[in-house]
Parts: sequence; structure tokens; C-alpha cells
Amino acid sequence: MFAPVYLDWNATTPLDPVVRAAMLPWLDARFGNASSRHEYGRQARAAIDEARARVAAAVGAHPTEVIFTSCGSEANNLFIKGAAALMKPGLVAVGAIEHPCVREPARQLRRGGWTLREIAVDTAGRIDGDDWKAVLDAKPSLVSVMLANNETGVLQDVAALAHDARTAGTWFHSDAVQGLGKIPVDFRALGVHAMTLSAHKIGGPLGAGALVIDKRLELAPQIAGGGQERGLRSGTENVAAIVGFGVACEHATARLESEAGRLAGLRDRLEAGLVAHGMRIFSAGAPRLPNTTFFAADGFDGETLVAKLDRAGFACASGSACSSANPEPSHTLLAMGVERDAARGAVRVSLGRDTTLTDVEGFLATFERLTNELNNLTAMAVQS
Amino acid sequence: MFAPVYLDWNATTPLDPVVRAAMLPWLDARFGNASSRHEYGRQARAAIDEARARVAAAVGAHPTEVIFTSCGSEANNLFIKGAAALMKPGLVAVGAIEHPCVREPARQLRRGGWTLREIAVDTAGRIDGDDWKAVLDAKPSLVSVMLANNETGVLQDVAALAHDARTAGTWFHSDAVQGLGKIPVDFRALGVHAMTLSAHKIGGPLGAGALVIDKRLELAPQIAGGGQERGLRSGTENVAAIVGFGVACEHATARLESEAGRLAGLRDRLEAGLVAHGMRIFSAGAPRLPNTTFFAADGFDGETLVAKLDRAGFACASGSACSSANPEPSHTLLAMGVERDAARGAVRVSLGRDTTLTDVEGFLATFERLTNELNNLTAMAVQS
Repeated sequence: MFAPVYLDWNATTPLDPVVRAAMLPWLDARFGNASSRHEYGRQARAAIDEARARVAAAVGAHPTEVIFTSCGSEANNLFIKGAAALMKPGLVAVGAIEHPCVREPARQLRRGGWTLREIAVDTAGRIDGDDWKAVLDAKPSLVSVMLANNETGVLQDVAALAHDARTAGTWFHSDAVQGLGKIPVDFRALGVHAMTLSAHKIGGPLGAGALVIDKRLELAPQIAGGGQERGLRSGTENVAAIVGFGVACEHATARLESEAGRLAGLRDRLEAGLVAHGMRIFSAGAPRLPNTTFFAADGFDGETLVAKLDRAGFACASGSACSSANPEPSHTLLAMGVERDAARGAVRVSLGRDTTLTDVEGFLATFERLTNELNNLTAMAVQS
Repeated sequence: MFAPVYLDWNATTPLDPVVRAAMLPWLDARFGNASSRHEYGRQARAAIDEARARVAAAVGAHPTEVIFTSCGSEANNLFIKGAAALMKPGLVAVGAIEHPCVREPARQLRRGGWTLREIAVDTAGRIDGDDWKAVLDAKPSLVSVMLANNETGVLQDVAALAHDARTAGTWFHSDAVQGLGKIPVDFRALGVHAMTLSAHKIGGPLGAGALVIDKRLELAPQIAGGGQERGLRSGTENVAAIVGFGVACEHATARLESEAGRLAGLRDRLEAGLVAHGMRIFSAGAPRLPNTTFFAADGFDGETLVAKLDRAGFACASGSACSSANPEPSHTLLAMGVERDAARGAVRVSLGRDTTLTDVEGFLATFERLTNELNNLTAMAVQS
């Protein structure tokens, strides 16, 4: 099997071997439905309880504040639509660079009489202070601003924004999917009312996410039925995935400090090489995740570069994974005021647990060779 | 590890070893996000396409008609709420013995101005013909009637009901979760507009379900975002679970004919023993799944019996797994007109792939011993 060096850790991550080992028994003899009142069911229930405690501990929350979902997208939809369903239609405000799984459910609310406002960001991708004030003056009922952007890695000052929102009497949610495991994420310190997490971005499995919620926030379930997850998310719990999520949270937060420093070092080496080769790093001056570099190769097409890099043995992204099938340039970059042509040349490299200095240097050498080849082809085409 | 004989296959099933083997590579080196445009992503996408073809083939549908979800509950919610969201509020009618994941979303529609009507069943648990006619006369916009009941195993004549509904101009959905793998399930032959499937009831994993839909039926996504599953279900696909679902469908349908006969034989042996011991089998005279026996031990408490059976080495259920945490007697039995006291004594035994004649005979012997002991205790208490 052809296995390029994986430099797309913000899209998804390989299972941490410790997580995989913890999951396997639940795909084998321990197969019970956690709602069953027999030995198999009780074991599954106990495993979910333990995982809930691990996830809660990783983010400084109480286990009863953790609602398991099937993914981060589901958790974001649960907050936006679940909270709105129990309110009078009002204003929902979301960051202009939110993931589509925040922006789309917010758009859906308009069918129910809600008004949607996107909160502007500056050229570095940070929430614009003036627009933020104007949004709060408009008295939104619900606000969602992500902790870390999936493309640029830019961090928002969520603690300050949440404080402002609370003062204004607004329910505040943050999509913390890209922050978890890369920067400290503490539910109480952030002061948000709700927060979204996902397992598969931190060495956990696909199939598990969570909405961490302040219990004063009332939500209508988006998947109603048997009443699992305190009635907020029905459906037989995916025990193996939930167990894996718990272990992944524990391990990702335990190694966060050492990993963040190591990844930042590799990222800095990567960016120094890219800049020396004439690349422009988006949001370079803003606080960012330690593992993410989003850059533009002016005059190149990002999709083409990513395809060539893949064949040459390096897997990275041209935009956010979820919208890679979308030919539109990154909405994050457009919201930051980047010209469409430059945005079309964007490439994202995101590092992780297994990334080494050799990988980064190999990437740089290959990237330089490929762009030089493309430049020569262009020069030849111009001459002929 | 204490491992009772598992007789609760309608709640969930152990992974078929073939399914587990097919899943493992996707929990290991093949970890890509299916939306990524590199080798890892393309492999994941191809695996999902293959799984979609397998699921479609198992139920006589076209692959493009299969929308993957995280579970059956989500698929049922997607039909009811997704279809209703794009219609003017009207009448939604669901069977009185539907699973809560159909009844609850139908109830939620009332917040949006919909009227909910439950379709009565007769004493055997079959849709009542007169009430069905009255429901259609009331011109429902949406109807949902399950193919096979999770508790009694009773089958509905979904093909005839769907035909009536089409004639009346009503969108018709069937929850086929308990039918799949136990009886033939054919999307075209049933003539439904939508149908729900689940992996973990047929030897597949938790974390995968599907809504099979006639593409003329327009649905609003319940999880909106990156646009996966033709825009009807966003969120990074759970590749391993979807792969497992595909293989489970293929295997469960391939062995259906031989297994159905074998299980019916075991079920008949079980029921003969129970009847000889004075038990009353619910829906005994109606067409039923080959693997399911729901019976009442008059004068006993089902919960107590299930707990004693568990300790004695046999795992079965006192009601549907999803509502086992609910102290209310089975709503299926109440809808059939069974008295509350009798319903409280109900025990469900559901057989599966690994069940043997030895298991059934062991269960019968243990059940007789336990009920005799309980009877003696009662007699002693009366005497003293």
C-alpha cells in the first residue's frame, strides 16, 4: 500500500495505538447495548460512564455536562438548532470563518424566522472588535465562535468573547474541535455555555463527538427517541467509539505540553523554509495552533499542488477537508479579505503525533522541486 | 469475564467475525478522511462507495438511494423531521407500536404546528384496518409504520400499506431495522418512499445506519455542514463502521434463508416449552420474525425475572432495550390492549447467529427452575 507522509492532521488523525487497544474489546466480546439490563449492558454502561469522566476531566467539566454525539458536526448542530428550537426566533451570530457545520445550521434557522449575522474577522482571521461590539448591541440570542480555525489555525480569545456575551445576556458556544489536544481547553476557564469536541482529531476514532453544556442551557434533542444522553441524544451509544474518545482525551491532554512545543518547532522550521521559497503564510502574526500552516503559493493552483505532493509522497490539504470537494476557494481566506486568486493557491500542512523533522524537511525539498518544475513549465510555455 | 448466554439479539448483536476483520484495517493504517483529496482520503472514499453498493444490493435499492447516518434513530429522525421541514404543517401518522425514535420526532413536529395521530393496532399488534382507512381519509402528509416490531417481532404488511399510502398521495416510511437480516427486505417490492436500516442489529457495528430514500422525496438535512451524503448528512464519515455495515448486510442477507429456518425451529422449541410451563406468548398467531419471543409470566415481574436469569447465565430483555431504563410497561403491549399487570411480567428472548439448541434448552430449564422457586417463595409467604 502506497502510504504518503501524512501532513493532514487537522482533517483526521490515525488512531493512537493506546486508543485502538482500548477499543478492541468493545468490538469483540463486550458488545452489549448500554441500555440493556444484563451483564453485557451493564459493562457497556460502565464503560460509557468511565469515558464520560475522562472527557470531562480533559476539559475541566463535570461528567454530567458531557453529551456524547456521533461527531463534532452533530454537536454543533445540536447546540444551534437545539437551543433555537426552545426560543422565540431572534438573532443568531456566528463567526465569518466558522466551519460549515456551524454556518449551515445557523442558515437553516432562517426558515424558522431567525436572522443570521456573520461576525467579521480582520485580515489575520481574528474576530473584528468593532463588529463584535455591533453584534452584541444587536442582542443576539445565540452566538458561536470557534476556538481555533481548522484552516489557518488562528485562535480566538474565546474567554474574553464569552465574558462579553454573558454580560450581554447571550448564550455563547465555541467549536473547540481543532483546539482540543493542541492547546489547553478548559470549559470553566473559557466561560462558555457550550463547547464542541471531536474524537477523531486527537487520535481517537471516527464516530464520537461531544457537546459540553452548561445545564442551564435548555436544548431540544435533534435525534429524539429512546432518551439516551439525558434525553438530548437518542440512539444506541457507539460504545467502542466513546471508549476510544475517553482514552484519546486523556492521552492527548497528558502529552499536550511536550507535543505543543515539539510541533511548534517543526512548524517554525517548515514556515522558515516556505518563506525562504517565497511563500506567504496566512495569519502568520496571529496567535495560532502549534501544528498548522496555511500558505499560498502565488500563481499556483492549490489543488494541483496538493495532487502533485500526494503523488510525490506527502498528503496535505488545499482547504478544509470537509469542503475539499467544493471548488470554491477557502471561505476563511475570503472572509479575511484574501483575493480569490491567492486563496486558490492555498495549501494547508497540519502536523501531528507522528510527524518528524525528516518529514518536514522532505516536504520542503519536494515542495521546492515541484514548484520549480511548474515554474519551468510555465516559462517554457511562455517561450514557445 | 462472566459471559451469560446472549439471548438479546434484537437489542444489539456481537460483531460478525467477517465484519470485524473487514473493519480493522480502517482502524489502523487506512485512517483517512473521505473528503481529503490525497491517497488516504481516496481510499476511504472508495471504501464508502463499495459499502454503499453492498447495502443497496442487500435491500434491492440503488446505491444513490442510500444515505448513511450514525444509527437507525438518526435515520428515523431524518425522515420525519427532514421531510416535515420542507412541507406545510399537516398530519403525521405513525403506528402506535413504533419505536420511540419514530414516535418522539413525530411528537416534536407538533411544536411546528403539525398534528400527530397514532395508528391503532389490534390485539395481535397488527395495524388495525379500520383505523388505517380512517387515517388515510384524514390525508396525512407523512406516515411511518415499522416493518417488524422490536418487542413482539410482529410483521406489518408494509407493501399493502405503502400501496394504500401512495394511492392516497402520502409519503410512506418504514423502520426496517428489525426486519433486515431476519426476513427479506426489498425497497422496490415494499414500495415505500423511505426505509431505515441499522448495522448493529445484523452483526455489524454500532455507529452506522442508513435511510434509503426515493429521491423524489425532498429532505432537509438534520445535521448540516460540510455537505457529505449528498448534503443530507454532514459530518466526517465513520469509515470503519460504514465498511462494517456493508459487509454485515451482504452476509446477513446471504445466510438469511438458512438462518431464518434454523431460528424459527429454535423459537418454536422455546415457545413450546414456555407454553407447557403456562406462559402466554404475545402475538403468537400473527406473522412474526423467526427469532423473537415476547411472553408474559403472569404474576411475575419481568424486571425481576430478567435480573435472575442474567445471574443464572442467560441475558434477555424485559422490554425494548432502548426503554429498559424506563419503568413503564411496554408501550407496544399497552397499545395491543394487554393489561398493565400482564405487561409488567413481559420477557423478551431474541435469538441470533450463535444461538444453539443447547442454549434454548438451558434457558427453558433455568426459567422453569427460577419461576418454580419464585412460586414457592410466594406460597411460603402466603402460608406464613
